[in-house]
Amino acid sequence: MAYTSKLIEEAINEISALPGIGKKTALRLVLFLLKSNPEQTERLATSLHKLRSQIQYCQKCHNISDTTLCSICANPHRDTGLICVVENIQDVIAIENTAQYKGIYHVLGGLISPVEGIGPEQLYIEHLVQRVQQEQPQEIIFALSTTIEGDTTTFYITKKLKEFPVKLSNIARGVAVGSELEYTDEMTLARSIKERILYH
Amino acid sequence: MAYTSKLIEEAINEISALPGIGKKTALRLVLFLLKSNPEQTERLATSLHKLRSQIQYCQKCHNISDTTLCSICANPHRDTGLICVVENIQDVIAIENTAQYKGIYHVLGGLISPVEGIGPEQLYIEHLVQRVQQEQPQEIIFALSTTIEGDTTTFYITKKLKEFPVKLSNIARGVAVGSELEYTDEMTLARSIKERILYH
Ligand SMILES: [Zn+2]
Ligand SMILES: [Zn+2]
Repeated sequence: MAYTSKLIEEAINEISALPGIGKKTALRLVLFLLKSNPEQTERLATSLHKLRSQIQYCQKCHNISDTTLCSICANPHRDTGLICVVENIQDVIAIENTAQYKGIYHVLGGLISPVEGIGPEQLYIEHLVQRVQQEQPQEIIFALSTTIEGDTTTFYITKKLKEFPVKLSNIARGVAVGSELEYTDEMTLARSIKERILYH
Repeated sequence: MAYTSKLIEEAINEISALPGIGKKTALRLVLFLLKSNPEQTERLATSLHKLRSQIQYCQKCHNISDTTLCSICANPHRDTGLICVVENIQDVIAIENTAQYKGIYHVLGGLISPVEGIGPEQLYIEHLVQRVQQEQPQEIIFALSTTIEGDTTTFYITKKLKEFPVKLSNIARGVAVGSELEYTDEMTLARSIKERILYH
C-alpha cells in the first residue's frame, strides 16, 4: 500500500506485525487514534513500553508479575498447601476469574510435545519437583488442556512425584475434550476444579 | 477480569479501548509481545508516540502529512490542473493504490449529513472554493461515496462552483451503490476514475 506519510506507514507496519491484524485494520486503528484525544495514544504507547520493560516472572510460580513474587504467591490468604499446575499465564487468569480457587499455582511455561520438539527440560517441571520437596504441599491439582500434550505432561510429572507424600488430582473433565483451557467458560472451569478427581 | 499484574492490566485496558478489540484479543496481543523480542514492543510504542505527536495535515489539500505540504502536493510530477475531491484520508490511500491517478486531491474531512448534524461549514468546502479561485484547475473530480450524504455533498459543492470556469466530473458509478469508497477493490476504483462522467 502507498501512504503519503512515513509516520503512518511505520505505525501501520508495527501494528500489522501483531498476530491477526492486517494492514486495513492497522490503518483503521491509526486513523482512530489520530481522531481521538492525543493522551489516549500517549497512554497506549506508555503502557506498552512499561509492560515490556518492567514485567517480571514470579520466582516461585513463574506467573507474570510486577515484582519478584507475584500477588498470588505473596497473598497470605491463599492456601499454600494446594498447588495448581497450569500450562501458561492465560490459564492462571482463566482460573482466577472463576473466583473459586484459593490455592497457589505453578506455571509450566508449555506442555511436553515431541512434535514441536518441546521436552520436559524446557519446562518448569524440575522446579515443580523442588517445590513439592521444599514446600510440602498436600495436593497438586493438574489443570492442563485435555489434549495429548496435556495428558503426556500430566503423566510425566505424576511419575516424577510418585515418591512424595502428596495427593495428585486432575480437574474434572467438564472441560470439553480437545479444547484449550483458556477458552473454557468460567462456570465449566469452576465446576471442573471443584469436582477434581483424586488419583494418587 | 482479574490480572495479577498492574502492568498487564493497564496495557490490556489501553489496547481494548481501540475499536473492534476486546479484552481477550488484547490479552492475546499482550502475551504475544511479551514472548517476542523487546525491540518489537519498543518500535510499536515509539511509532505510536511519533505518529500522534508529529503528524500534520497538508495546508493545501488536508491530506495527512509529515510536513506542512503533503508529498502529493509537493510532487512536481502531479497534474495540479486536476483536483480529486474525497471524503477522507482512507480514500486518498485507496485511489493512490490504483496508481492510475496523477492529479492532486482535496480532502473534505467528512460529508454533509443533516442526520449526524454535519453541515458544510464543518467541512473544507469553503477552502475548496478558494482553491478553485486561486489555483484555477481545469477539472474537479468528485470521488465521494455513492450514498445520500455523498450525493448531497457533490450537489452542494457543484452549486458553489457553478460560477467558475472549471469542468466538474464524477467518477464512474462502477463503485457499488451504497458502498464505501475505501472498501472498493482497486480495479473497480481505477476504472471508475478513468471513466468519470463530465457533467458541467
Ligand atoms: Zn507466584
Ligand atoms: Zn496536500
